[in-house]
Amino acid sequence: MTKVKVAVAGASGYAGGEVLRLLLAHPEVEIGALSAGSNAGERLGSLQPHLWPLADRVLEPTTPEVLSGHDVVFLALPHGQSGPLAAALAETDPAVVVIDCGADHRLEDAAVWERFYGSAHSGTWPYGLPELPGGRDALRGARRVAVPGCYPTISSLALAPAVAAGLVTPDVVVVAASGTSGAGKAAKTHLLGSEVMGNASAYGVGGVHRHTPEITQNLGRLTPGGPTGVKVSFTPLLVPMSRGILATCSAPLARDVSAAEAYDVYATAYATEPFVHLLPAGQWPQTQSVTGSNAVHLQVAVDEAAGRLVAVGAVDNLAKGTAGAAVQCMNLALGLDETTGLSTVGLAP
Amino acid sequence: MTKVKVAVAGASGYAGGEVLRLLLAHPEVEIGALSAGSNAGERLGSLQPHLWPLADRVLEPTTPEVLSGHDVVFLALPHGQSGPLAAALAETDPAVVVIDCGADHRLEDAAVWERFYGSAHSGTWPYGLPELPGGRDALRGARRVAVPGCYPTISSLALAPAVAAGLVTPDVVVVAASGTSGAGKAAKTHLLGSEVMGNASAYGVGGVHRHTPEITQNLGRLTPGGPTGVKVSFTPLLVPMSRGILATCSAPLARDVSAAEAYDVYATAYATEPFVHLLPAGQWPQTQSVTGSNAVHLQVAVDEAAGRLVAVGAVDNLAKGTAGAAVQCMNLALGLDETTGLSTVGLAP
Amino acid sequence: MTKVKVAVAGASGYAGGEVLRLLLAHPEVEIGALSAGSNAGERLGSLQPHLWPLADRVLEPTTPEVLSGHDVVFLALPHGQSGPLAAALAETDPAVVVIDCGADHRLEDAAVWERFYGSAHSGTWPYGLPELPGGRDALRGARRVAVPGCYPTISSLALAPAVAAGLVTPDVVVVAASGTSGAGKAAKTHLLGSEVMGNASAYGVGGVHRHTPEITQNLGRLTPGGPTGVKVSFTPLLVPMSRGILATCSAPLARDVSAAEAYDVYATAYATEPFVHLLPAGQWPQTQSVTGSNAVHLQVAVDEAAGRLVAVGAVDNLAKGTAGAAVQCMNLALGLDETTGLSTVGLAP
Amino acid sequence: MTKVKVAVAGASGYAGGEVLRLLLAHPEVEIGALSAGSNAGERLGSLQPHLWPLADRVLEPTTPEVLSGHDVVFLALPHGQSGPLAAALAETDPAVVVIDCGADHRLEDAAVWERFYGSAHSGTWPYGLPELPGGRDALRGARRVAVPGCYPTISSLALAPAVAAGLVTPDVVVVAASGTSGAGKAAKTHLLGSEVMGNASAYGVGGVHRHTPEITQNLGRLTPGGPTGVKVSFTPLLVPMSRGILATCSAPLARDVSAAEAYDVYATAYATEPFVHLLPAGQWPQTQSVTGSNAVHLQVAVDEAAGRLVAVGAVDNLAKGTAGAAVQCMNLALGLDETTGLSTVGLAP
Repeated sequence: MTKVKVAVAGASGYAGGEVLRLLLAHPEVEIGALSAGSNAGERLGSLQPHLWPLADRVLEPTTPEVLSGHDVVFLALPHGQSGPLAAALAETDPAVVVIDCGADHRLEDAAVWERFYGSAHSGTWPYGLPELPGGRDALRGARRVAVPGCYPTISSLALAPAVAAGLVTPDVVVVAASGTSGAGKAAKTHLLGSEVMGNASAYGVGGVHRHTPEITQNLGRLTPGGPTGVKVSFTPLLVPMSRGILATCSAPLARDVSAAEAYDVYATAYATEPFVHLLPAGQWPQTQSVTGSNAVHLQVAVDEAAGRLVAVGAVDNLAKGTAGAAVQCMNLALGLDETTGLSTVGLAP
Repeated sequence: MTKVKVAVAGASGYAGGEVLRLLLAHPEVEIGALSAGSNAGERLGSLQPHLWPLADRVLEPTTPEVLSGHDVVFLALPHGQSGPLAAALAETDPAVVVIDCGADHRLEDAAVWERFYGSAHSGTWPYGLPELPGGRDALRGARRVAVPGCYPTISSLALAPAVAAGLVTPDVVVVAASGTSGAGKAAKTHLLGSEVMGNASAYGVGGVHRHTPEITQNLGRLTPGGPTGVKVSFTPLLVPMSRGILATCSAPLARDVSAAEAYDVYATAYATEPFVHLLPAGQWPQTQSVTGSNAVHLQVAVDEAAGRLVAVGAVDNLAKGTAGAAVQCMNLALGLDETTGLSTVGLAP
Repeated sequence: MTKVKVAVAGASGYAGGEVLRLLLAHPEVEIGALSAGSNAGERLGSLQPHLWPLADRVLEPTTPEVLSGHDVVFLALPHGQSGPLAAALAETDPAVVVIDCGADHRLEDAAVWERFYGSAHSGTWPYGLPELPGGRDALRGARRVAVPGCYPTISSLALAPAVAAGLVTPDVVVVAASGTSGAGKAAKTHLLGSEVMGNASAYGVGGVHRHTPEITQNLGRLTPGGPTGVKVSFTPLLVPMSRGILATCSAPLARDVSAAEAYDVYATAYATEPFVHLLPAGQWPQTQSVTGSNAVHLQVAVDEAAGRLVAVGAVDNLAKGTAGAAVQCMNLALGLDETTGLSTVGLAP
Repeated sequence: MTKVKVAVAGASGYAGGEVLRLLLAHPEVEIGALSAGSNAGERLGSLQPHLWPLADRVLEPTTPEVLSGHDVVFLALPHGQSGPLAAALAETDPAVVVIDCGADHRLEDAAVWERFYGSAHSGTWPYGLPELPGGRDALRGARRVAVPGCYPTISSLALAPAVAAGLVTPDVVVVAASGTSGAGKAAKTHLLGSEVMGNASAYGVGGVHRHTPEITQNLGRLTPGGPTGVKVSFTPLLVPMSRGILATCSAPLARDVSAAEAYDVYATAYATEPFVHLLPAGQWPQTQSVTGSNAVHLQVAVDEAAGRLVAVGAVDNLAKGTAGAAVQCMNLALGLDETTGLSTVGLAP
């Protein structure tokens, strides 16, 4: 069978590198052009030395010309750059599948986009979280996919069953501890190893993080009131590890719910999902278990005294939180088996 | 002036070691007996090699005889051991000051104690968190002090001003990321370096952690309804660092509150506190800034969209979260300046 | 084609878990019995939650009966246990291939074994480092393989070309910084996360580490004087990471050697090796680049002023350093392509 | 008594921050001007939030005018900047004591300086390692002090007794694992937390690191042949921790030396040193034990089979490795007790 020819824009960054790591293990893919911004002209091996089989590839500039002529183009770029690039690609390659790992095409509400990102909205693409109720249909055969943000992926999956089943009122509190790779590979003082090791910090507190409206949008699809009926208090934390997000998500119980009922609702919701693993009762998620994999680990509890349902989820922010979801969505878009080239086995310890 | 003669029970553990680290810098103290359980008979230098000046001290068994004859005895023992030991000490040394770093004497409600700890209650001692409203009076000249738990210390300080001022309803959500030293020095597989590095995990989810009722008790003192009117959803996280807790605490706004008003309430509450540092607006706490110090760093935000006040606090779980508070309480008990031997300067990076 | 049926003894430990992680990605293997010592009877999912596809498997006791009836048995056991177990297996399954991840069958000299391990020698098996000169032949079709120690793997590969080519005198100094998983999963105080994070330490200093004679043996095969003509000063370090070894290896130049000549010797030695990657001149190895992979990254320099050749190598101690080598040797033993199921792509960042 | 008025140039970096952390605990010092380069004009609290008592200080530009009028000026600047600044200060403040934490004035041989640093030599100042034989005399009452590099500090102290006593030939191999703060606070991609966590790497291999000639110079003072008779093979490693250096140092035995004799030589050499702690036989150094302190922990072994003496030392690169040594030298220069304001107690765990 002919291989799917794939280009990756942003190949020198963390998301782009992870897309490549996964594509190297994908049996149906041939890796074509690799592009970068300021790193164009460099050997990939000097920037991503873990990708040995591609070490001698030289990065090209991120232009429509370089990316043309492929079946699939992955965009792993700073927000604001995907929109114009995708528009240019649409002209030269009308049939190309574009998988955007960035934020540009995730939000439906242009006004919300502009408030949180401060630029013009580029439009909305099918949202790449097939595990949400109804989420898979729009992705089969899609030509464009907006890969979800890492925090919205795990927060939405951890809360969706409870919200959709009406176990809780959609007034949620999410505190999510993330590894540093989510902040990207640009050199910034506060991300230096000396600053992050032995340190935990909060940022974007008070609803100002850009992933807040994305969580709201996802939960809004599951509740009669829509996004305007949803309240999301989201606090991201930076903790001393390279990868992984552990999200602690809770909401007020809407009625009496037993632990067993809550567990059953989650078990039913994800019974057939290949990448969502509700752990046995009593076992709680940890990020190490999903490192490098496309798996999501979940657990749920009912705190009667506090009157809340508490769900905890673990995901690898670069894998299922970004690049793994991107490959999963490519599989769906191309009609391949959804799990091709993706693993549910984490790297531990 | 005659030095205060101090004994430390549990000198081979993390809390006991930290008490000794601080006492070595305390100008009014002379370090007397050091005791341990299974480590009795060993050189302190082989167990706590960072305490060089005490390296040649040999640990004695933790008995009333060994601990007798001191002005102050610090107990850094597993819960359940402080009660009988303190009773025995009261007989031989009626004037001794006992500072209990453990949990035995923190809770007021014996039924709550028994439910969470599964043993008989040992009684209630003055609670060693002077920064809570009215908290300092009971500690001046006290003969017995129950040092607060590490999570309750930071959670209570982060929420107290908002609860006491009625800015929020006392229906709080606390998610607190802790370093591993809070789990102690006993060898357990899940605390191995290989397990905790590159890993974030949740434990004690759903209201079952023993620090939950202590937070409830503290906030209950600040609200007209008392502890029965308080709901606490508390989730502790283990993250890959040795020291530090970052607590993200939120509660529903009870009325319209501006960011400036919330900040002012916190600024006023802690204006004269030597160890509580409300950061300038816009700057968020991080644990590295308080490592090894007795300082607490706080910040507060109002999330209008979510209808919640969010406060974030950082503390060193071993210092102000345990041993620093113990020394601070000793100072109050003995009539010394409260800050003697304690620093507000963290060790960073 | 019929799958190869494989059993793993010691499935609850780090080496056993890594063997399973790799076997789950191996296309020719069917995973049979999983056994453990004190963990027998437990679900694998509670001990190795990253191995989701095997989560519901229950561990059996490590007995010849449990392990019988497989094509291949991997032993990932404390040293001293492989000998008797392999003897018992030989009776019930004469054709079984046994891959011993432990130390029992690595050393040729029984007296050296007894001096370093303090027990009777179990005999010598083909040594599973095919990249050493002549190393591959003994492994093709082998029924028994002794997987090398993690430190000897990287130290030997880093020094072999220089020793074999006579660039240096075999009077080597190896200082190797290792992640903590090399010390195993048994709960020990000095391996607690609180002890290893923010900490670097040396152990086994002065030639007493058990991997010292194994390095000596390997280099001795490459020099006319044999092992008695080889001196090895080996110091292992524990550094705060879960996986990886970075070995800094040096030896006195035996004659004038230019940097280019040294590089060429290494390039030639490993030109056709699928898992040994001599980096481009000027680029130095780092462990992150090989995490989870079977790759070894190497670089070499000539320090004229010091009169030494310095080679640095990086390996994942659990992968190519243990379990990856085990799978590679199984492939050779069974006549499969040597690289089947093994990757040269690391997990980074 | 009048306090000593001190200025710190480079107060926003790691070395400058550590000088301030120590000075805040120094009873004889009053902190005067704080200066910075590109961070001039900012609040110190936003850059060094751990230095709470100085949080509201505003950084001034690093100029002779700003630094004039103090008793002591600490320079914590990139190399090449101390020379001209010190010259300017000498004109306005002839009596000022200048403590240079940078490299400019450490080396005696101008040609060596130029080869390693690529700029004109600024001259040689008294070398701030009082624990070397004869090292203390030149520092008492000195007006200028060159604080040693972090690697030379620990390497020289670990090797000096053996070299001075002739136990070894001065043909040494040093492999030193360092935390990342030694690389400074400038934002660089390879120092990002995502890059350094879970990673160990070598750099400056083959004798090119700038600390190599400094180690050679120090050992050259202890051997009849002088520096030309000394060979130093030095390899620095970067390991995942913020602070600390663990140096493994070895050299060929010059004659038969027993373990006891070697230990005695070290014990005698450092018997009266307040900051050098030779551990009891059998206990090996770890960096955590000296974190934040001015202590050096050492141990020594004789490896008969390898014919080498191996010494291992631990130091906090920012404390005794830089800022602690700077304060110690200030004490000597001013005639204060050498240990004033400095601790031998580490922060652990």
